[in-house]
Amino acid sequence: MDLYGRDLITTQEWSKAELDVVLELAARMKRDRFSERWTKVLAHKTFFMFFYNPSVRTRQSFECAATELGGHAQFLVPETMRLKTATTAGETIEDAAKVMSRYACGIGIRILEDKVPYYGAGTELLREYAYWADVPVVNMADDRFHPFQGLADVMGWAEWFGGGPGRPDYTRLQGKKFVLTWAQGALARSWCSVQEALLIASRFGMHITIARPDGYDLDPEVIEWTRQNCQAWGTSLEITNDPVRCMDGAHIVYARNWMSPNAYQDGQFKKQEEIAKALSYQGWTLDAAKMARTDNAIFTHPMPVDRGNEVTDDVASGPNSVIYLVAENRLHVQKAVMALTMGNL
Amino acid sequence: MDLYGRDLITTQEWSKAELDVVLELAARMKRDRFSERWTKVLAHKTFFMFFYNPSVRTRQSFECAATELGGHAQFLVPETMRLKTATTAGETIEDAAKVMSRYACGIGIRILEDKVPYYGAGTELLREYAYWADVPVVNMADDRFHPFQGLADVMGWAEWFGGGPGRPDYTRLQGKKFVLTWAQGALARSWCSVQEALLIASRFGMHITIARPDGYDLDPEVIEWTRQNCQAWGTSLEITNDPVRCMDGAHIVYARNWMSPNAYQDGQFKKQEEIAKALSYQGWTLDAAKMARTDNAIFTHPMPVDRGNEVTDDVASGPNSVIYLVAENRLHVQKAVMALTMGNL
Amino acid sequence: MDLYGRDLITTQEWSKAELDVVLELAARMKRDRFSERWTKVLAHKTFFMFFYNPSVRTRQSFECAATELGGHAQFLVPETMRLKTATTAGETIEDAAKVMSRYACGIGIRILEDKVPYYGAGTELLREYAYWADVPVVNMADDRFHPFQGLADVMGWAEWFGGGPGRPDYTRLQGKKFVLTWAQGALARSWCSVQEALLIASRFGMHITIARPDGYDLDPEVIEWTRQNCQAWGTSLEITNDPVRCMDGAHIVYARNWMSPNAYQDGQFKKQEEIAKALSYQGWTLDAAKMARTDNAIFTHPMPVDRGNEVTDDVASGPNSVIYLVAENRLHVQKAVMALTMGNL
Repeated sequence: MDLYGRDLITTQEWSKAELDVVLELAARMKRDRFSERWTKVLAHKTFFMFFYNPSVRTRQSFECAATELGGHAQFLVPETMRLKTATTAGETIEDAAKVMSRYACGIGIRILEDKVPYYGAGTELLREYAYWADVPVVNMADDRFHPFQGLADVMGWAEWFGGGPGRPDYTRLQGKKFVLTWAQGALARSWCSVQEALLIASRFGMHITIARPDGYDLDPEVIEWTRQNCQAWGTSLEITNDPVRCMDGAHIVYARNWMSPNAYQDGQFKKQEEIAKALSYQGWTLDAAKMARTDNAIFTHPMPVDRGNEVTDDVASGPNSVIYLVAENRLHVQKAVMALTMGNL
Repeated sequence: MDLYGRDLITTQEWSKAELDVVLELAARMKRDRFSERWTKVLAHKTFFMFFYNPSVRTRQSFECAATELGGHAQFLVPETMRLKTATTAGETIEDAAKVMSRYACGIGIRILEDKVPYYGAGTELLREYAYWADVPVVNMADDRFHPFQGLADVMGWAEWFGGGPGRPDYTRLQGKKFVLTWAQGALARSWCSVQEALLIASRFGMHITIARPDGYDLDPEVIEWTRQNCQAWGTSLEITNDPVRCMDGAHIVYARNWMSPNAYQDGQFKKQEEIAKALSYQGWTLDAAKMARTDNAIFTHPMPVDRGNEVTDDVASGPNSVIYLVAENRLHVQKAVMALTMGNL
Repeated sequence: MDLYGRDLITTQEWSKAELDVVLELAARMKRDRFSERWTKVLAHKTFFMFFYNPSVRTRQSFECAATELGGHAQFLVPETMRLKTATTAGETIEDAAKVMSRYACGIGIRILEDKVPYYGAGTELLREYAYWADVPVVNMADDRFHPFQGLADVMGWAEWFGGGPGRPDYTRLQGKKFVLTWAQGALARSWCSVQEALLIASRFGMHITIARPDGYDLDPEVIEWTRQNCQAWGTSLEITNDPVRCMDGAHIVYARNWMSPNAYQDGQFKKQEEIAKALSYQGWTLDAAKMARTDNAIFTHPMPVDRGNEVTDDVASGPNSVIYLVAENRLHVQKAVMALTMGNL
């Protein structure tokens, strides 16, 4: 299997066999992190990180990944790029991408809902870069998808139910009940992480439950893909507005705030309105009482965690929390994808 | 020939033989980009990139160059430097340069017309750093000169007329007709790239034609140096205000907007006035009709290209466009100069 | 002696023997800067530099240190970290520190008085990071302490009175007269550098004199620690408001502006008031007449120097100025501490 030169916009567009190769390599890299097998893979090569939106984990882990593969990640922001926009003269994406391809072995882009005029425009921008670039373009989170978060999630879950850190067993995820629940919160969060989680959880054979208040539906196309993934495995997909009973028998609980489909109005992202609305709900904080209904479920979250709103401290810092395990995996899955698509591995 | 420790402010101050050494090394580096002959030259060394102005190509290509030579480029901006200015207390250039010399193997500086009170002040600042620093200071574009762009330009032209990418033949440039034409545009561009192009084109034996509207003359000293360079080769220098007939028989066409000599008024750079004036001209966009008058000329430009204003898409993306070839060469000529002036090569 | 995993908040919390180990290694690293003994110590490792406040020397020298040890320093600013604050939702320090520990071999933090609501809150923040992080947290300057500046200072002084650059002799400092004098200035400077200088000068057996106008006392706890350090050596501690006679017989003169204890009012740092007050004093600029009273003293300063206010040019650039020697040592002491606490040395 040759992944050299491949773009990664969402895990849904890679075959299950391709994802398996990535995840197997990520586990090997985690078990033997600084082995010389990996530290020369991008030796003296440059990876461009292009941040339309700032980031915590993503910037830290991608720059770290490039360093551990022997290369270097350049931190770029569009303010310094003099790109053409609807209202300003500047460089086209065609020109930017073609020249970047001559300097770098790959390009990562992050662009979220508050930097685009409508839902989906972030993914479209990534696809335009991918079209023109001669090197792989990978999605460091856009308004729809977050493939590296999804890969890190599923790796962490498989480590928990498998042999522990660095020893994931993905077959153990088959038939498990995965609950994604909306949560209160003061950050009006993107759909990208939760949508990618739905896609990848359903790719790995889990039963899917989505709990959210009425009015907080996610992208219909992503829900349809999730349904198709479930059909292929013969697993179930349930959508409910009950934040409590959804927990019964759960093995994995993913509690996170997300914005409503009405967040865009008149070409603008209405963040403050979304936050006010989200904070008005009661009963959507994940707590120990809800966790007690599950089948000893783990708590998972892509971080940063909005403690007190999304989840109580005792759950977020409890023995079944996998948040740090998953966060660390960002590094390993990114190294694996970069090595396979941009390197000589 | 020993270039170790040399500053590079403009190619005009380096001998032809010195430029030949740089360009020959750049071609070898391009042909064998990640050879171990180059990847240890700046091993564990630091290069400071000091950006008074943001940049696209320059930042990407210099940081990439340091990485490919085994070193690391630090991205510095003056806002974080607490430097002394006319109105604020702070550190002198003497102190900043002397300490930077103890940490780094070289210093690159970029400062354009909008960050200085009068034309030429950018070059003066570079010379002050070069005076105090104990390591090479190289010009990453100032208000007068852009030596690495000039080197990349001439390398790209010599590749086209020579043996292709990585196989430039500089003798093929002798006697060619080089046309620099002013162009409409919405960016009020610096003189640095076009002036460096005039200087280096005339150093390599080309006939020079400058076409610009009345009122858009460039730096008289640069024009005088160009005239002297032409005299040494016995080539011609022509200046015209006809954007069409200048094309007759051209081999290389360089079309770019630049600001007028009146851009500075009362110690301020009047960017908006310049843009308004530049956009008022008609007939100064390079198009296929003009290119048809040439001797199958190539189109060259330092990028970013203001498509639609400076040049039509069919020319910018046409088969005779060398813009990406030249842009890539930024990397190679920068690696060559850094290796020779700062490294152990 | 095993320093692996140790935090460094202030030199006062490390034993004299531990400081000796650091300083001996720093001298060896300075004598043989790019030896392979050091260039692999942090190979492929990431060091996070977290700048609440911008910096000149600190950023340049830490990033350079990581590069020279074979690793990479990531430049992070809190604006991009989405951290929880008193008024905004976001990530807790617990979560941030725990995840950073999984990516990096160490964390450096800089936070000065203008970013915290009261004096001491900067050090408290560092201690909170150090509590949660599983990797060393080192102080890149907070509102109270600046351990790397102190180490660089004492190394430079011991080089001057010892065998020259790279050959410090710390026994020569014993019994010397160290004068710290407040100075006029337009920058309202932090207490961190001067307090660390007092602590480390008194740790190495010097007599201490502090000269400052009434109303410019430093942290009483730091003064008390300095007194205890002097008692252990049997040396003297004198505090005076006479900027002239304090110089008599001095061997080391450290002249620097600092803010008054009244700089914080109502939870805000009153920078402009402090500058206005500081500039109103006369007779507190260090000049040749004062230096003539000393025992051929050296002039030392952590830079940036506010020439003309803190010190005259002839002293700052005179033959007894050690400012560049000390500034270079920032690099070497930082490499030594990073190698010992984060590396395999």
